[in-house]
Amino acid sequence: MTGKKKEPRSRNEILNAAIEMLEFTSYSSLTIEAIASQAGVGKTTIYRWWENKAYLVLDAFLMAVDSKFEFNSNNPVQDTFKQHLEVLARILNSKIGKSTLSIVTENEEIAKKFYTSYLSLRRSEAKQLLQAAMEKGEVQSIINTDVVLDMLYGPIYFQILIYKKVPDEDYINELLIQVMKGISIPNQS
Amino acid sequence: MTGKKKEPRSRNEILNAAIEMLEFTSYSSLTIEAIASQAGVGKTTIYRWWENKAYLVLDAFLMAVDSKFEFNSNNPVQDTFKQHLEVLARILNSKIGKSTLSIVTENEEIAKKFYTSYLSLRRSEAKQLLQAAMEKGEVQSIINTDVVLDMLYGPIYFQILIYKKVPDEDYINELLIQVMKGISIPNQS
Repeated sequence: MTGKKKEPRSRNEILNAAIEMLEFTSYSSLTIEAIASQAGVGKTTIYRWWENKAYLVLDAFLMAVDSKFEFNSNNPVQDTFKQHLEVLARILNSKIGKSTLSIVTENEEIAKKFYTSYLSLRRSEAKQLLQAAMEKGEVQSIINTDVVLDMLYGPIYFQILIYKKVPDEDYINELLIQVMKGISIPNQS
Repeated sequence: MTGKKKEPRSRNEILNAAIEMLEFTSYSSLTIEAIASQAGVGKTTIYRWWENKAYLVLDAFLMAVDSKFEFNSNNPVQDTFKQHLEVLARILNSKIGKSTLSIVTENEEIAKKFYTSYLSLRRSEAKQLLQAAMEKGEVQSIINTDVVLDMLYGPIYFQILIYKKVPDEDYINELLIQVMKGISIPNQS
């Protein structure tokens, strides 16, 4: 998290208060007043850090996912992506995840910040994974990595946002098997 | 469109009024009053047909896409999917399309109606296309059709909803080439 604030403790308390409240309140019913009261701070403290509720919830999401995407890239690439997709599905399906997706969908400014603070970082990690797999001879080197990553991550967002289903382990396995069929190096034996 | 009403002309005029207004008004600023005034009907006429703005906008979307997905399935399956994905990207990126996606994302009831009135019909057409391609020997018969269709359609929704980009012809071509690599029958020559 960049741009450390003077009072990180109360900042994190506010973000945690928002995450807790979203467990039993819809995003649209969530108010800055209620978050302030739950966190034991004044409304002005919140407005000093966040322009509005949407930015606060996005920062709460970023805090919640901060340490979730750390993986061992020495494993076969299919196993690492499996872990990635399972963690992603769980996060996006949580209350804070769903609220974040909903504001990203409808708010261009939040979508930009979601892109720079989250999506572009995850994308660059995923590209490095594919790159390493190419170097190890697991994956063809001629693929369009952005398109391949959209084929892996797009269906997860699609299922949650549009189908309102949570992709389970079976779904993720089938998706990975199908994507790998088009990118792995044919067995020479 | 099922369940024909007594006054289809004014019903369509109301839906068209909503589509026109969304060209220069955001969904959140759109009001039933303004739609009524634009269509030259009373508010009570609108409320007789639609419970609220969200259902009206969803019906406007359904009317707008009604005749857009008619394709010739005698062409190679890749060509037919290319047309499908291009039409889909254009529709989802239109004002009425974006408004619909936004309410589908945040409203479970609308999501259910979107599924039964739109998504499930498109999905069953797409499955028939894959089935016909299997019978013609263009596509392997052992694939998981739902997963394969999510790999085609998921990235389109993902790009528009999350990346806020419109998938262009190049993107759609690359996506199709990559998906086909994993499902087509290897050349025996």
